[in-house]
Order: sequence, then structure tokens, then C-alpha cells
Amino acid sequence: MTKMAVFYYSSTGANYQLAQWAESALKEAGAEVKLVKIPETAPMEAIEQNPAWKKHYEETKDVPEASIDDLEWADGYIFSVPTRFGALPSQAKQFIDMAGGLWGEGKLVNKVVSGMTSAANPHGGQEQTLTNLYTSMYHWGAIVVPPGYSDNVIFGSGGNPYGTSTTVDGEGNITDDVKGAVEHQARRTYEITKKISE
Amino acid sequence: MTKMAVFYYSSTGANYQLAQWAESALKEAGAEVKLVKIPETAPMEAIEQNPAWKKHYEETKDVPEASIDDLEWADGYIFSVPTRFGALPSQAKQFIDMAGGLWGEGKLVNKVVSGMTSAANPHGGQEQTLTNLYTSMYHWGAIVVPPGYSDNVIFGSGGNPYGTSTTVDGEGNITDDVKGAVEHQARRTYEITKKISE
Amino acid sequence: MTKMAVFYYSSTGANYQLAQWAESALKEAGAEVKLVKIPETAPMEAIEQNPAWKKHYEETKDVPEASIDDLEWADGYIFSVPTRFGALPSQAKQFIDMAGGLWGEGKLVNKVVSGMTSAANPHGGQEQTLTNLYTSMYHWGAIVVPPGYSDNVIFGSGGNPYGTSTTVDGEGNITDDVKGAVEHQARRTYEITKKISE
Amino acid sequence: MTKMAVFYYSSTGANYQLAQWAESALKEAGAEVKLVKIPETAPMEAIEQNPAWKKHYEETKDVPEASIDDLEWADGYIFSVPTRFGALPSQAKQFIDMAGGLWGEGKLVNKVVSGMTSAANPHGGQEQTLTNLYTSMYHWGAIVVPPGYSDNVIFGSGGNPYGTSTTVDGEGNITDDVKGAVEHQARRTYEITKKISE
Repeated sequence: MTKMAVFYYSSTGANYQLAQWAESALKEAGAEVKLVKIPETAPMEAIEQNPAWKKHYEETKDVPEASIDDLEWADGYIFSVPTRFGALPSQAKQFIDMAGGLWGEGKLVNKVVSGMTSAANPHGGQEQTLTNLYTSMYHWGAIVVPPGYSDNVIFGSGGNPYGTSTTVDGEGNITDDVKGAVEHQARRTYEITKKISE
Repeated sequence: MTKMAVFYYSSTGANYQLAQWAESALKEAGAEVKLVKIPETAPMEAIEQNPAWKKHYEETKDVPEASIDDLEWADGYIFSVPTRFGALPSQAKQFIDMAGGLWGEGKLVNKVVSGMTSAANPHGGQEQTLTNLYTSMYHWGAIVVPPGYSDNVIFGSGGNPYGTSTTVDGEGNITDDVKGAVEHQARRTYEITKKISE
Repeated sequence: MTKMAVFYYSSTGANYQLAQWAESALKEAGAEVKLVKIPETAPMEAIEQNPAWKKHYEETKDVPEASIDDLEWADGYIFSVPTRFGALPSQAKQFIDMAGGLWGEGKLVNKVVSGMTSAANPHGGQEQTLTNLYTSMYHWGAIVVPPGYSDNVIFGSGGNPYGTSTTVDGEGNITDDVKGAVEHQARRTYEITKKISE
Repeated sequence: MTKMAVFYYSSTGANYQLAQWAESALKEAGAEVKLVKIPETAPMEAIEQNPAWKKHYEETKDVPEASIDDLEWADGYIFSVPTRFGALPSQAKQFIDMAGGLWGEGKLVNKVVSGMTSAANPHGGQEQTLTNLYTSMYHWGAIVVPPGYSDNVIFGSGGNPYGTSTTVDGEGNITDDVKGAVEHQARRTYEITKKISE
């Protein structure tokens, strides 16, 4: 059975929502799925200064945390993380940086990867953050599966060929119609992962 | 007097419009300005198959063509080009590639650069095309001046920190409110160019 | 039978050599292979001013030219092109830009892609040119297969995880020991293409 | 007096050395300079497992730590950080992410930036890490000053136009002849910063 891990980081909930949509679509498609939360590294003082962040932090306390073992376990990965200044948030980069040991053993080669993201502005890093992720994935010898324009649903969701992306408002709400695009991207990534890993 | 060149490539008019707005703002700010058209390289058969392209091609026959000498003449450059598969159109890349001689003489060092772009989808390469341009500019030793979020007008125009960008419809119409952002970016580029070149 | 196309552009021969090594490795691995030359777009005057370019141009007159049909025909692509100011040469970008029709019909989705490159300086764009290629490939919905560090031969060839790269001297000679890395990359791309296309 | 901050992160010393060379050149050129260490975020267990990391960590205990205030204080920045999977190390990204408050107040606009890096392989991310840095700097409205090929010393140091880079061996030793290129890059960044900030 093809194993898929959905790794997400979210401060106010948008990327958790994208990750959940991906998880459902993957399960429905027949994958064995883990939805895991990239560990927070910000100090509690920072979190507490932002009510929306604090609320989401509390609400997702029980979501299992991502571990390096999940990178080994899964055949394919979906990452969903916000952009921070046009690149991965430091939380996500720290998780990736910790994979040096697995990388050294060659255990990340041929993992299949696709990414999703969000930003506060329509052009606030939605493209750069995904290519930043993929650059790191190349170092792993992973296989990158972007959605491209592989389905009409992508055009209606903002037409980001690198991965589904959305603009979020000040409260962390998703303002684009991206559910269908997330589901398509998840299914597509699963189909390719199945072919690669079998 | 600070010399600014606005280099544009446009098939159906959007980037010509952006370039004209930049030209006006630059003149008003006190720059000596040249607005020049990056030469078309597509065969006439291709142009003639697309009525909007043909129309714009005919309408702009008298706009002077960009030459390598313009790259030497100007102290600062504004590029306005559409995205083609997330990167510069080949027309623009051909113009840049032709600067090898000037580059070899070190005459492109310290030129000041800022870019603008358009795409058919909201996330259709608006970010990647600008960073693609800037990567080539690094080879020239140029100084890259992105708008960032240096003015509130940027937030209303889509919030692209790499350069003003717009989505265009099937007829080449600009669908975002970007005139103010273009003018701000032009003025900002001029101010920095003045400081660098004096 | 899995069909692989090796698309190359070369002015003084290095990328033709890389392409030939890839072709041999692909054939040996069992692929049906086409080695095709991306059409030159530079004027003859430019070519004639550079004896090494002219020599290579004459020597490869009989290599078949790449056509858009080859993009449709092949299941997997290997691109080998030099860097020009940290990005694809305009010749290669023009070829890619011409695929708009195929792209519109969705015929480029799931093509498998890997790239190789060369530059005049050790850090003269070897990384940027490959990620520039891959960004365009994302627009096609292609699947990107970088070598990563999937074999020890990569470490001895400069360790470029994005694709094999070499520094070339003034006469266009390959100065790194990259034959093994090219062969590995070709075989790896073929293996993945076989899985995707079957 | 023009104020320059050299921000570095180093696990085994190479980027500390680059930073020190930059500091000396900046002082000699007449700048007011701060050399500051980006805070370590890795757990002590990780550091202690690597003798070279532990040694460097102990040796640099007294180097002042970078603070967000330093970002406000300085007119120009030089960053020197290793590559981690083709992008900024999470330590450096965390420091950058913490600047959200200053960014919101517009206090990072027009800061002048140039970067340097190192990797374990000749093409192990030396280019990507610098462009990754610059993408984040665009969000700040900073002005990016790459070395390009602005001096012959760059060709002898590996010819990285995005910023000086070096390959390091297993003990963290610099294996390229980059001292002159670092000094040139530092002076060049200072000269431009002086023009912008006056």
C-alpha cells in the first residue's frame, strides 16, 4: 500500500486546512496516510502575542508531531506551509535540516514530493516558497510533482503551477476557492507515488 | 542628468502599457528617459495567427527598438516583460544574451535594475519571471532594486515585492489596479539610480 | 518501449558531448532514443566571429533539429544546454516557448525531465540554469527528476544535485570528470520515465 | 558614518572566517562595523555529536549574538551562511523570520545587502542559497548588490556572481582562494551602501 505523509506547518490554520483536504483526498484515493504537524520552534511569548496563533496552537495540540521517521516511512510527501519572506518558514526549514542523517544514508532518494502554500498578499511569495521547497528536495534526490495545469480546477484556484496556493486574510482565513485544486494535487501526487514506489 | 531606459516586450499590449506608465513617472521625476521595444523574434506566421498580437505589432511599429547601446547609455533599467512558462520570454532573453560583449568590458557593472511583468493566471509566473530576470542581472554586477513593500500602493496592486505584476485577460487587458504601483516603482528605481550613478 | 529525447543546444561542443554520453547510456539501458539539436537562432555573423562556435556549427550540421513533435513523441526528456547569464540560452527558451500549443492541449503533462549544463566559471550559473529549466517544466506539469546525491559518482563530478554540470574552458572543453555522472543521470531518468509512462 | 553589519552563522568555522575577512575589509574602507553571530538553535546534543561543531561553538562563545536591533542599526548587511540543502540554514531563516515587526514598520526598506556562502560540494547549493537569501531581501525592500564579475579577483575565486562562495572539507576548512574576493565584495557593498544611505 502506498504510504503518503502530509507535513504541514500552520500558525493560524490555513495550511492545516489545506493539509486536511489533502489527507481526505489521499485516503479516498486509497493511500495509507499520516497527517503530521511540523514542530513549532517559536517561543510561547511570541505565540501568545497573537490571539489567532494562540487559538490555533491550542486547537491543534493533539495533532501528532512530524518526526524524521515519517520521512523514511512515507513513499510520497505533501508539504503545506505558509510563506515567510518568500521562502519556507524557519520551522519547516528546521525540520528539513534535521534530515541530514537520513540523507547521508540515501534514504530520501526517489521520495515523491508536492507542495502547497499560503501568503498574506496575492503575490506574497506563493511561487517562490514552493520553488524554494523543491530546491531542497532536489538535494534529497526526491522526485518533484508539480500540478502544472494538469486539470481545469487549477485555473479556477489561481493557476499556480508549482502547487496550490491561497491568500489568507488577517485571521488566517482562506480567501481563494482552492479545495478542488488541493484534492486534485493530492490525488495526482498519490498516483505518481504509486508508480514510483511499486 | 540620470538616464533611465525602459525596456519592454509585449505581444498584446499589457507590458507596453506598464512601460508607458513607468516612462511618464520617470520623466515627471526628472529623469532622461528612453522607452524601447525589445525586438520581436517570432516569425510573422505566428504573429498573424493571433489577431490581438498582430494588432499590437502593427500599432507599435514606430516604437524604437532596443539596442545594446541603450544598455550602455542608461544608468538604470526598468524591464517590463510577460512571463512565458515562469521565465523571461525568449525575445527578452535573446536581447540579454546579446550583451555578452558589453559584459566582457565590464560596462554593465552598477547598472540599477527593476522589473515588472504580467501573466495569464494570477500565479502564472509573476514571481518567478522577476527573479529569473534578477538572476541574469547579478551576472552583470547590476544592482537590483525591488519594490518590496516600500509603499502602501503595493498592497493594493497584488503585493508583489519583486516588481509590479498584473494578470491579463485573453485580449491582453490589464485586470489589476497597478498604475500607482508602476509609478511608485519607477520613481523608486530612479531615486536609487540617481544615488548610485552620481 | 520507453521513448527518451535528448534535447541539446551547444555553441562550442560541450553540451553536445554531454548529450551524446546521455544518449549512449539511454540506449544501453533499453530506451528508444532521439538525440536532437535545438535550432540555432543567432545570426551567421555572430557565429562566424567565433572560430570554435563556427567549427562546431559546421560539424553538427547533420544532427537532426529538435521539433515540437519530439516533445510530444518522447515520454522523458533530457536537456543539455549551457548557461547564459544564469539562465537558459535564448535558443533553448525559444524552443520551450514554442510549445504553447502542445501545452494548451495538455500533452506535456507527466513528461519526465532532467537537465545538464555547463558554464565558463565553476559557479557561473550551473545551479541557476537547471532550476530555471525546472521552473518552466513545472508549467508543463512535467515530473522533475534531479540526480540529487543518488550515486557516489555524483560527488566526484562536482556534486551538483540539480543535474550534471561542468566548467568549460575557452575552447569549449569539458574540464570536469562528468561522464559517469551523465550516464548515471540518464539511466536514472530512464528508470523513472519507464515507471511513469507504463 | 556608514554602518555595516556582518551577520554570520557557522557550525564549523568557514563562514566565521569569511565574515572576519569581510569585517576587516569594511573597517579598512572606513565603515563602522559590527560582526555578529546568528544565534544557534540546534540542541546541545546535536552540537556535541560533531567534534568540529562543538569546538567552533566553544571558541566563538564570546562573539556577540545578532539581534533584530542590528538590522535596524546598520545601513548595509553582509550575510555569510553555509548552505543547507540548497537554502539558508534554519538558524539564519529563524533570524530573518523574527524581523516581521521591523518589516511592518517599513524600517528595512533600502537596506543594502550582499551574501556569501559555503557548501560541502562544489555545486552543493552555493548559487541557490544566495538567491534564496536575496528573495527574502526583496520582501524587505532591500537593495541587492551582488559582486557579479566586477573585479578580476572574482574569476580566481570560483566566479560566483551572486556572492563569494567556497567549498569546505569535512573539518570545515575553506578550500578555495576566496580571501581577495570576500574583501572586494565587502568594499563594493560598503561603497554602494554609502551612496544609498547618505
